[in-house]
Amino acid sequence: MEALDYHAEERRKAEFNLDEMKIVWAGSRRTHEISDRMARLVASDPVFRKDNRTMLTRKDLFKDTLRKAAHAWKRITDLRLSELEANMLRSYVDQPAFTDLHWGMFIPAIKGQGTNEQQEKWLPMAYKMQIIGCYAQTELGHGSNVQGLETTATFDPQTDEFEIHSPTLTSSKWWPGGLGKVSTHAVVYARLITSGQDHGVHGFIVQLRSLDDHLPLPGITVGDIGMKFGSGAYNSMDNGLLRFDHVRIPRNQMLMRVSQVTREGKFVQSDVPRQLVYGTMVYVRQTIVSDASCALARAVCIATRYSAVRRQFGSQNGGPETQVIDYKTQQSRLFPLLASAYAFRFVGEWLKWLYTDVTQRLQANDFSTLPEAHACTAGLKSMTTSVTADAIEECRKLCGGHGYLSNSGLPELFAVYIPTCTYEGDNVVLLLQVARFLMKTVSQLGSGKKPVGTTAYMGRAEHLMQCRCEVETAHDWLKPSIILEAFEARAVRMSIACAKSLAKFSNPEDGFAELSADLLEPAIAHCQLIVVSKFLEKLQQDIPGKGVKRQLEILCNVYALHLIHKHLGDFIATSCITPKQGALANEQLRLLYAQVRPNAVALVDAFNFTDHYLGSILGCYDGNVYQKLYQEAWKDPLNDTVVPDGYLEYIRPILKQHIRTARL
Amino acid sequence: MEALDYHAEERRKAEFNLDEMKIVWAGSRRTHEISDRMARLVASDPVFRKDNRTMLTRKDLFKDTLRKAAHAWKRITDLRLSELEANMLRSYVDQPAFTDLHWGMFIPAIKGQGTNEQQEKWLPMAYKMQIIGCYAQTELGHGSNVQGLETTATFDPQTDEFEIHSPTLTSSKWWPGGLGKVSTHAVVYARLITSGQDHGVHGFIVQLRSLDDHLPLPGITVGDIGMKFGSGAYNSMDNGLLRFDHVRIPRNQMLMRVSQVTREGKFVQSDVPRQLVYGTMVYVRQTIVSDASCALARAVCIATRYSAVRRQFGSQNGGPETQVIDYKTQQSRLFPLLASAYAFRFVGEWLKWLYTDVTQRLQANDFSTLPEAHACTAGLKSMTTSVTADAIEECRKLCGGHGYLSNSGLPELFAVYIPTCTYEGDNVVLLLQVARFLMKTVSQLGSGKKPVGTTAYMGRAEHLMQCRCEVETAHDWLKPSIILEAFEARAVRMSIACAKSLAKFSNPEDGFAELSADLLEPAIAHCQLIVVSKFLEKLQQDIPGKGVKRQLEILCNVYALHLIHKHLGDFIATSCITPKQGALANEQLRLLYAQVRPNAVALVDAFNFTDHYLGSILGCYDGNVYQKLYQEAWKDPLNDTVVPDGYLEYIRPILKQHIRTARL
Repeated sequence: MEALDYHAEERRKAEFNLDEMKIVWAGSRRTHEISDRMARLVASDPVFRKDNRTMLTRKDLFKDTLRKAAHAWKRITDLRLSELEANMLRSYVDQPAFTDLHWGMFIPAIKGQGTNEQQEKWLPMAYKMQIIGCYAQTELGHGSNVQGLETTATFDPQTDEFEIHSPTLTSSKWWPGGLGKVSTHAVVYARLITSGQDHGVHGFIVQLRSLDDHLPLPGITVGDIGMKFGSGAYNSMDNGLLRFDHVRIPRNQMLMRVSQVTREGKFVQSDVPRQLVYGTMVYVRQTIVSDASCALARAVCIATRYSAVRRQFGSQNGGPETQVIDYKTQQSRLFPLLASAYAFRFVGEWLKWLYTDVTQRLQANDFSTLPEAHACTAGLKSMTTSVTADAIEECRKLCGGHGYLSNSGLPELFAVYIPTCTYEGDNVVLLLQVARFLMKTVSQLGSGKKPVGTTAYMGRAEHLMQCRCEVETAHDWLKPSIILEAFEARAVRMSIACAKSLAKFSNPEDGFAELSADLLEPAIAHCQLIVVSKFLEKLQQDIPGKGVKRQLEILCNVYALHLIHKHLGDFIATSCITPKQGALANEQLRLLYAQVRPNAVALVDAFNFTDHYLGSILGCYDGNVYQKLYQEAWKDPLNDTVVPDGYLEYIRPILKQHIRTARL
Repeated sequence: MEALDYHAEERRKAEFNLDEMKIVWAGSRRTHEISDRMARLVASDPVFRKDNRTMLTRKDLFKDTLRKAAHAWKRITDLRLSELEANMLRSYVDQPAFTDLHWGMFIPAIKGQGTNEQQEKWLPMAYKMQIIGCYAQTELGHGSNVQGLETTATFDPQTDEFEIHSPTLTSSKWWPGGLGKVSTHAVVYARLITSGQDHGVHGFIVQLRSLDDHLPLPGITVGDIGMKFGSGAYNSMDNGLLRFDHVRIPRNQMLMRVSQVTREGKFVQSDVPRQLVYGTMVYVRQTIVSDASCALARAVCIATRYSAVRRQFGSQNGGPETQVIDYKTQQSRLFPLLASAYAFRFVGEWLKWLYTDVTQRLQANDFSTLPEAHACTAGLKSMTTSVTADAIEECRKLCGGHGYLSNSGLPELFAVYIPTCTYEGDNVVLLLQVARFLMKTVSQLGSGKKPVGTTAYMGRAEHLMQCRCEVETAHDWLKPSIILEAFEARAVRMSIACAKSLAKFSNPEDGFAELSADLLEPAIAHCQLIVVSKFLEKLQQDIPGKGVKRQLEILCNVYALHLIHKHLGDFIATSCITPKQGALANEQLRLLYAQVRPNAVALVDAFNFTDHYLGSILGCYDGNVYQKLYQEAWKDPLNDTVVPDGYLEYIRPILKQHIRTARL
């Protein structure tokens, strides 16, 4: 018996080899295979069920998370999974948990900032989860401004201890995941004070809870900060608050790789370069970009499959109505997001390479590319996560009314994704860093110092300020060199225009503050250029399968041209293109959408999501949407009884009343 | 003792009279007073508490809704409230409930589509809530395409009855609020079939549940469709599903004002003009625009007040840090939304006038302005709700990390608001209707038929196609005539450009389908022009208080100029303004932000929201944010115990294990 597949016809239309595309998406055949194996492992295990998540109370949801984390750990250890496999398994469980912070922040912090001895002491326990840690940085009153944190760590030379203290209400640690109910330890960021002198913010390993009975240790107040956006989503996580009342820890629990406090209380900087910290940042942000492509791909997969199932209007002679994916309004909103998912995937892949490159250079004491790499990852983190957050909501809207149902999967995907725009650097703050770097690069253009990496194009500023776009027909917009030059010219012209405006201020900092909103724009233009150029570079690589390469070319062009249309004002105001050329780009875009259309469902199949991971009735692989919606509805607790609880107290008395008094 | 007010200093800065502005916002002194009274009535009543809403299970939340609805009804009848007062009271309860549909859709449907006899029979029962009704139109497979609904109502001349039936799975009614668990009756939309002939979709009054025991009547399957976006939000509503298995109703329960079925089964149209339906649409959409301004005002109020409390970076010599509202990046995102709240308020006010005007004309059999009024309200519904939905999320982001907490109020405001973009006409479908109307208007320009109402400017197309913007300095951008002409020129030029592209297609419908995505753009330009022009008209009215008028002028300019900046490509590509003039608009915008800044908190105080209605710790009137956040956190159920439920089963075993096998 053939399995039901409402998308069978769509799948037959595809003009490329799906297995080849899956490997391109995954990055390599090996990654694809491991990823596929881990996804199936999770999907087939009833403990990892998540379809009832939105119906649970906060307490039940939290307990469910503990259960899943314990079970995941058991599978990881029983199956002796590698680090890569374990990470993938955890990500496919798809439920925020304290383990995310333990593995993703606590351990990396000790690895990055601890001395060798500290690593030898703490890491084995952490790897075995004999201690569970979190990352206690953000406070009630301080997020972005890490240097403004208020918690203090005062050295007491008499006892060779630090006293950790929360001097104000706003100094309460606030937000750290895993802190509220689970972590036994934390890396706590606090102002180091020795002999009355403030040495700024440093990290300290602090035990929070007893390993025997899990009770908070003396002087420690700890709890959960309460409900967050949406149902399900991050409510599975015990984001916590933490206050210290003169809590003492041994001196050797300050993370001392970069700075130390001696037995005598002297503050010394080690010869380990501080720039190492940036290496970690590059790493973390690279994973965020990679996660953005994944979250975007999920939303696009749901919206694409449902748009192929949903039909509305256009029935002729009693035949079926038009699939909504055939409407140009739907295509012009959906296909750029599909293209963006691929674009972000490839720029994420490139960032992995960049991290390796940066690491190697750091080891060779070459810090020359670090500022550029740092600005580039900050900008890409900001741009890809902002686009993805908006895109998830756009995909929900593309699913019409049914996208508002929890079981469309999109509400929870949105709720769980959006904090990414805030954590690890607020997206606006990050763009300002990029802008600052661009202004610096512009100011050095005359100095002979050559811009490197993703800013190399600025070295050709003279040409880019004058060049004219040579598009005469819509077809010309398919030429990589023309696309690239348009984006380069736009970025450089916007940067230089901002630099000129800044130059009018006698105090550069005043100028930067006054013009900061305008400075965001060249920063975005620069980031979009990076994504476009990395997509074009990807197409130069050895891509298996002619069909696959052709599809990626189309998606790359969609990505670039939709940006030109969206930011037309930038391109025209800087005379990078003419209004006529803008219209031609739009014309070409319409032709490209028609080419994406027959491949759309297969292009989202290539993401290789299991129905479990996708968690969406609208996006289910077989497309049997309506029947599943109908069956699921009956599972809601409100349907446990035909007559609802409350009928006798609140409905019947209204129906049976006799009103004489109402003026209505 | 003086009450604590962290915003006291901000409030002292205001350059206008707050009470005067409150009256301007409310529309009249009388409306302000009633609104104020109703808001306080709700806020002071413990039954209407809503701060614990996100912690409730679906069942408990629903029961809470029933309780509030019953209590609201008791207050309304006990206090003999007027219709206006009752509506306001219900809106301040601020929890979606079956009563919304009973009063907002069921009763209006009978009033609009029922004959006099039908109204006399059903309305008294409905007004007394002896029956509770809903509006069963949308089906699992049909939303926007109302004419494609599948439910059938087949006339049986033998028994003088209609047989209501759900022939397919996709014909199941799906989404109607109040249907799932409460309504005793529904206006059901179904295809009328007499003698085997299909007469399209008509409305029928159908009893669903017994008035004795609330059980569904024979042949009726009814239930709740399950959880929706967010926690709290629309989960308080029993959006329902409904299937009919050959359910019979008397012939006189077809709503027969416009069409009738005779005893013999003959289908006849009455002489009541069908256009009357559009009058109702104008009314409903006018209330949606008014609600948009209110929802946007709530989000802006929260973000503005919190931005004045929150400080980050910029501390000098140990002094306080900078209020985030002082950052230009914050202002450039927040103040246009503040201006939009006022702009939407005034266009909503004007729509009320338009509705009265349309009604009077309809009564005089004058249908000449109806298509224009219909297009205008469709477009404004679409534009204002899309902007508001995005703006709520933008305001959440403007609150940084803490905006993600449920008790910021923004997550639930977003979740409860976003369906507005879909119901009463999907926003993209509505914009296409506007586009169609604009194309028709353009095509008739040569015919001597003069465009009316909000399209009157198109009558000056010849001038607007050639006019040149006369801005030479940033200050010139403050002139109403210059602003208005720029928006008019842009709208007309974009419309005419689209009309020219359409003319290249031999089949106009093919052209419309192919270019539909592009056609959305002049539609948006047209809607923005309406809002700008109505704001400018408002400023011509008699506004009490020089300070108030000055603030509104500033906000109007912010609204217009931020749109020019945002849609710069439109304005420049159509040569309505030059790139230089675009830069001057942006320069002026920065100056305007500086003028808004000292008045910002007072401008949101003017919305006159109670803390109860606002439902946000970040936006509370006194600004005592951090203390309240801290206190609230402890109320989360997870904090009921120090050691969480699940510790013994799932955490302790991990911590106490001995792993020998892990490869990690």
